[in-house]
Amino acid sequence: MFHIASEEYYQDNQIIFREGDLGDWIYVLESGSVELTKNVDGEPVCIGTLHSGEILGDLGFFAKTPRTATARAIGTTVLGNLDRRFLDQEYNKLSGSFRVIIQSMAIRLKNTTQYACRQT
Amino acid sequence: MFHIASEEYYQDNQIIFREGDLGDWIYVLESGSVELTKNVDGEPVCIGTLHSGEILGDLGFFAKTPRTATARAIGTTVLGNLDRRFLDQEYNKLSGSFRVIIQSMAIRLKNTTQYACRQT
Repeated sequence: MFHIASEEYYQDNQIIFREGDLGDWIYVLESGSVELTKNVDGEPVCIGTLHSGEILGDLGFFAKTPRTATARAIGTTVLGNLDRRFLDQEYNKLSGSFRVIIQSMAIRLKNTTQYACRQT
Repeated sequence: MFHIASEEYYQDNQIIFREGDLGDWIYVLESGSVELTKNVDGEPVCIGTLHSGEILGDLGFFAKTPRTATARAIGTTVLGNLDRRFLDQEYNKLSGSFRVIIQSMAIRLKNTTQYACRQT
């Protein structure tokens, strides 16, 4: 269903990206799992685990923000890089106002995740 | 900038919609403010306040979920109903896979908000 530009292979426990890294690739998880953690007062706090078919990295694309969490492979994991040209084409089809709506949702997700971690 | 179909006027403290209501209109806040609360163990917990220019109600549209919070006017408040035909046209321009990405972000926002409230 997704337009995959390339695949990336990770071993168990290998870091995919770190919180604060620059990057706006969106991935679909083809197999394996990914643990997401945020740094809270110097300690990693798990904010979720992604499984096959789920999307990773969308906030970098929509909210134009550095990576909001550290992503680590759990077990042997395969990620599909969604084709960037396809994503840009799709996004560029949209009017400015519709993009503002999507961007505002992405920024709220970033802020809510930050808040939820502070409450843990 | 937005395509406004109609405007709604609210007095201070008036309910715009309640958590659990069905509804998928998206609004832009034209003036006044809106307080968002969620019911946590029978008590309303404030999860945020929206101000002029901000978007309200997007999860109903993108995540196809009942209203995830109660929205109440703070002061005299004017909301613009975004033109539903325009929103549908924009959304329908997108491929199925791009819609899945946006929908997954909306569902994560809904779940993260729920989690953040439980931690308060």
